[in-house]
Parts: sequence; C-alpha cells; structure tokens
Amino acid sequence: MGANGTQKTLHKVTIVGSGNWGTTVGKLMAESTAEHPDVFEKDVQMWVYEETVEVDGQPQKLTDVINTKHENVKYLPEIKLPDNLIANPSLVDAVKNSTILVFNLPHEFIGNICKQIKGHILPYARGISCIKGVTVTDDKIELLSEYIGENLSIYCGALSGANIASEIANEMWCETTIAYNTPPCDKHTANGNGVSNGANGYVVDEHRDSRGQIIKTPLTPVPSEYPALGHDVLRKLFERPYFTVSMVSDVAGVSLGGALKNIVALACGFVEGHGWNMTAKTAVMRRGMQEIIQFARDFYPETVQEKTLWEESAGWGDMIVSCTSARNWRYSKMAVERGVSIQEIERTELNGQKLQGISTSREVSSFLRARGVEDKYPLFKLVDGILDQNVNLEDIPRLFRKSQ
Amino acid sequence: MGANGTQKTLHKVTIVGSGNWGTTVGKLMAESTAEHPDVFEKDVQMWVYEETVEVDGQPQKLTDVINTKHENVKYLPEIKLPDNLIANPSLVDAVKNSTILVFNLPHEFIGNICKQIKGHILPYARGISCIKGVTVTDDKIELLSEYIGENLSIYCGALSGANIASEIANEMWCETTIAYNTPPCDKHTANGNGVSNGANGYVVDEHRDSRGQIIKTPLTPVPSEYPALGHDVLRKLFERPYFTVSMVSDVAGVSLGGALKNIVALACGFVEGHGWNMTAKTAVMRRGMQEIIQFARDFYPETVQEKTLWEESAGWGDMIVSCTSARNWRYSKMAVERGVSIQEIERTELNGQKLQGISTSREVSSFLRARGVEDKYPLFKLVDGILDQNVNLEDIPRLFRKSQ
Repeated sequence: MGANGTQKTLHKVTIVGSGNWGTTVGKLMAESTAEHPDVFEKDVQMWVYEETVEVDGQPQKLTDVINTKHENVKYLPEIKLPDNLIANPSLVDAVKNSTILVFNLPHEFIGNICKQIKGHILPYARGISCIKGVTVTDDKIELLSEYIGENLSIYCGALSGANIASEIANEMWCETTIAYNTPPCDKHTANGNGVSNGANGYVVDEHRDSRGQIIKTPLTPVPSEYPALGHDVLRKLFERPYFTVSMVSDVAGVSLGGALKNIVALACGFVEGHGWNMTAKTAVMRRGMQEIIQFARDFYPETVQEKTLWEESAGWGDMIVSCTSARNWRYSKMAVERGVSIQEIERTELNGQKLQGISTSREVSSFLRARGVEDKYPLFKLVDGILDQNVNLEDIPRLFRKSQ
Repeated sequence: MGANGTQKTLHKVTIVGSGNWGTTVGKLMAESTAEHPDVFEKDVQMWVYEETVEVDGQPQKLTDVINTKHENVKYLPEIKLPDNLIANPSLVDAVKNSTILVFNLPHEFIGNICKQIKGHILPYARGISCIKGVTVTDDKIELLSEYIGENLSIYCGALSGANIASEIANEMWCETTIAYNTPPCDKHTANGNGVSNGANGYVVDEHRDSRGQIIKTPLTPVPSEYPALGHDVLRKLFERPYFTVSMVSDVAGVSLGGALKNIVALACGFVEGHGWNMTAKTAVMRRGMQEIIQFARDFYPETVQEKTLWEESAGWGDMIVSCTSARNWRYSKMAVERGVSIQEIERTELNGQKLQGISTSREVSSFLRARGVEDKYPLFKLVDGILDQNVNLEDIPRLFRKSQ
C-alpha cells in the first residue's frame, strides 16, 4: 500500500554486474528492498557472467553457488548475501520488467551490455551507473551515465563517492553521492525531494543532457501507478545504516570528480614515492581539485555546480581516499620507489588489470592539447609528462609557484 | 634601488617567537630578505626568550648559541640557520623600527607580549600572525590577528596552512596561505597585487574588521618611501622554493579554518581509533568542513569568502593534514584505542602541553549553546559529547543520516 492508501505497483531492481563492487551494491540494495516492501519488489536480480567455480572440491556454476550458499565465493568471499539477491546468468532475463537498472561492471564491457539489453528493458526504466568515469577522445567527452542513457533511450544517473567495496561489504560505515536529475516527464509523479529544482541555471521544462542541451528523443514517463521515482526512492534503495547517501542533481560534477581524480592520485603517488610527505601531497590534491573544477567550468559550464566537487563525497571525499588508500596512488608511489615507470608496474604487478589513471591522463591530455588549452592544467600536464618520462620530479614545486 | 630607479627605504623584519615553528619561519624569511636587498633589510631580528642551554658541556645563553653556531639547539636542532637571522633577547629592541612584525609563539603569551611592545613599535608597522586560532568566549569570538591589531593599533594579517614545521625546516616542499587585507590607507603605495579588490562584498573605502565593521581608530599609513606593503612584498618575504605561498584577503576564513579544524581532527581520531577506515574519516572531514563554513556564514557573514575554505591550503589542505598526521588526531585515536578519555591522554602523554582541539571544542560548544544554535552543528556537538563521555561512538553514522 502506498502512503496514501492506494495500491502501488512496486519497483523492480536489477544490478547488472557482480564483481567485488557490483555484489556489494547488490547486497545493500537487497537489504533495502526487503525493508521497504511498499516501494520495491523484494527480490533484486543480479546479472552474473556465468563461470564455473570449485566449491568443496566440486565444480559448480557461480550463479548456483550464490543462490544456494548466498555468497559470491569468487568476487566477494566470506560475505553473507541476502537471500533475496538473486543471481541470474541471463542478462536479458535479469533486466526484464525492472524499473531500476543499476550498472556496475568494468568500463570496457558497457557498450556490449547495452547492445544486448536494448529492446529488452521497460521503456520507462531508469538507470544508475556505479561505473566511475567518462570516456574522452580528442573529439569529445562523454559521461558514462549519458552513454548508457543514450544507448538505451532511458535516463541514467550516477553513484560515486569515497567508497571501498570491501569495507562496505563488511558494513564499515562510509558515505556516497548519487546524482540523479529527475526527468521532467517524471515530475508529475515525483514528490518534492525528487524534483529537480532547476538549480543548474535554467528552468527545467524539458530534459537536458549534462551540457544543458535539450534531449531530442523524448523519454517515456514512469507510469503513475509506481511510487514516484525521484531522490526519495533512490535514497531508500541505496541508504543503509553503514552507507550514508547524499542526493544531488549534478551528474556531470559527480562523474567528472570520479574520473579526473585518478590523474591526481597518480601525481600524489609520484610525490610521495619521491619522499615528500602529507603536506606536499595535500598541496597536489588541492591543485588537482582546482583543475577538475577548471575542467568542469570549461567543458560543462551550463550544468556543473562547483559545490558538488567542494562539498560532496564524490568530490573532495573521493579525492582524499583515492590519494591515500587506493590503487592509482599505491602503484604510482611504488613506481617511483622502485625507480621504474608506472607503465612497467602496470605490466608486472596488476595481473593484466589496468590503472584507470593512466588512460584517463592520456585521454584528457590529448583532448586538452587538441584544444590548445593544456597550459591551463599544469598538474594534468605534469602527470602526462611523467608518463612520458620527461619531467623531473624535483621540478614539481616549481610548477606550482605563481611568482618566480 | 627601487624598480623605478628611486632609492627606497627598506622594510625591516622581526619575528616575535623562536620555538620550533617560529625559528622555522625566521629561517625562511632570513633567506628571503637576503635574496631581495631592494625590498628588505638583510638582517631579520628574532626575539628569543632567553634561557641557558648546555652546549659542548658548557652552559651558554641560547641567543649566543644561535648567533654564533647558527642553530637553535633547543627548539630546532640540526637545522642550519642563515647568518642574517639575529637572535635578540630584548623584545623591545627586537621590534624597534621594524615595519613587518611576524608573531609566532604560543597563544597564551600573546597578551603579555602585546603589552610589552606597545609604544615601542613603529606606528605604521604591520603584522602577520602565524598563531593559529581564535579566542572564543560565550560572549564573543575574536581572531588572534585582530586581537594583536587592536592591542597594538596596527593592521595584522594571518598565515595558516597545511604546514609541519619540522618538514619546512628541512626544506621539504609544501604550501601555505597568507591572508592580508591591505589597509586602504596603504593603497596609494601598494601596487596592483597588493590592493584589496573589495571582493568581500563591500567597497573598500575605509578599513574594516573581520566582521565588516569600520575600524574606528585610524591606521597610520606606511610611508611612501617604503616599497608598497601589499601582497607582492609579503609573498617575497615568505615564499621559498620549498614553500609555496597563496595570498588572499580573507583573514577571517583563514583564521576560522585554522582553529576549527582541530575539533574535526579530534573527531577523526575517535572514528579511526574505533576501527573505521579512511572512507569513514573522510566523511567526518567533509561534515566538519561543512560546519566550519556554516560557522563562518553565521558569525562572519559580511567578510568570509567560502572559497577560502574550499580552495586554500588554510582550508581543505590544513584539514587533511590535521586529520591524518597531526597531534589532535593522533592523541584522540590513542585515547579510543586505549579505552581512556582524551583528557586522560592529555594529562599522561603530553608533558604538560595542551591539545588545542579540546579547548576549542569546549569554547565553541559553549558559544553555540549560549546562542541556542548547537543543533546546527552536529559534528561539533558530537565531539563535545564525546569529551563529556556521553556519546557512544557506534552512534556516529546515525548522526550523519538525513533520512531515518
């Protein structure tokens, strides 16, 4: 029963992806759907790329193990999953009839996934991308959430923050930011908190993309028999006692923070590996945040709200964690300490995985050079130079001085 | 010779204080004055509270040791000081004829120091306070720089940032923020960069205090035969290859950041001592910064520029270093780990020194309660409650949730 006593159709939730972070988000959402039976169907579908795993000496299907042992023994071992998180090896079946699709899988798979599910989802489905990042070529930048939205003809927001999957899986408290600019066609059903207030600087009368351009293809509204799909429902879905959610409308700000901070994390690793301490690293973080804001001002002037980056977990919060506790920082520090290139460390230490910071640095530097504005971004340029091994780390402080 | 070929009277510089941080700042300023003979007298006076130290088995006066060995063996051992940093045991003699007075000594001594030097300084002297903090009673808040300025009838700015004295003494790179709102009476001599641009929201036609009130006692202008005393000269005095300076006009923002971050650092220590990790600590830092901004908005609405706190080393920079590498954080973490109160740790571990965060928390909480607004500051209130041992650390995440 809805709050006003009328029967509501419930939102069905699917998570597309079941790695370490995907399973963690699946776990917390399944806990929430069980807690809010007036809003969500209890079962959360989790698409699992099927593989065979060995359990108790026997080969078994990973989906069977998850659905019987309630543990993702391969990607999130020793964490008890809720019974209502249902592993499904069929992507098309997993997304069927879901109003809320949560994307959480490696960046490089998303194009193929969209192709597979297009035409098999509800026309009024809505998405949340937990995949950090943007795709940047010399020609353009695209937020991953927008790439998903465009390819599926749905609206898609983004989740990003100072989050470490294994800690959240163990229910250690942290917080996150969800950016969701509720489409105007859903406003008639969305309640107060779910409605975009037009704070991006224009009146929200038609839905716009992250650059403030009106989206040509009209969205199909979420039918009014569902609980209004806005900030309140998304907070109910993602918030846990150990996972505090802050809701914003600025998808571009959240996405740029999540992507570009990886360049800064590389710089912090270089600086710390060189023997400088927290005070120097902090200076680098501060300059890095200024350049992210600069980038947002230059390329998303209509929509980014700078306070997203200053204030939110997806801004300064993610910056601090990425530059003190995460991969890009750790491996760039290791590179300097061992006197080898970061590319060498990537080849030898990462079991074939990639460091996001390296590709983001390359793509962003190329994009800025193509526009002749690379000198407005001295830190980004510096990291690109270090990747090319033509910058002496001793020169870093000089690059930051205003007077000479 | 000045840049325009006319002979200028040189600025004379004195540092009042010679502890670990005072001697470090004396060192870097003496390096700078030697490098800029067109602006500064070469010798920098450093007032040293005279004491007897043992050197090579012989008792000697500390000032003699500093002036002959060029090392502050007691407070900054093993750091070579410039020959032109002159230790002076006479406070009155040390400040005589100096145009630039830099204050760098423990908070509790400043009242007495001001009494001793009043009437013995140039009427047009200008000050920089390196003493972090504000004094807060139930009745009022006062910035230390303003306390100095009022007591000496001079203008006084503030230096604060993500700085650790021993690292700077060893010439490890970091950066700082200097807030100096060039008095209008000095504008006719100050060059472009030295002039306040009125960005605080009012036209700068008369000098105002940190709340935007016009200062009644007129300042004596710096005579025009001196190099214009504004941002350029101060940058020349403080900036070193290993010490990057950012100049701003927002003295209140810089001072509030430097003082209130100590409350946040205590909270971070409690959280980390409890077993939460960097992601949780980052959430606490973020909320802490929001409350510092809230405090600035509530009590310095006319003058504080929020971007000082978001952007400057004295804002987020100092916050990060204080919550990951400094005393208040370290000892509050230790208290939780040992299962004792922070007051107990202060008594047993600090050799009679005090933790600034404890007194700042007490003073600020009392000030907020006197105005009935303590609930607007849940983190500050939380720390006060922990000091009273009536908050369960497990409840911390709940305090941060918007929805229940």
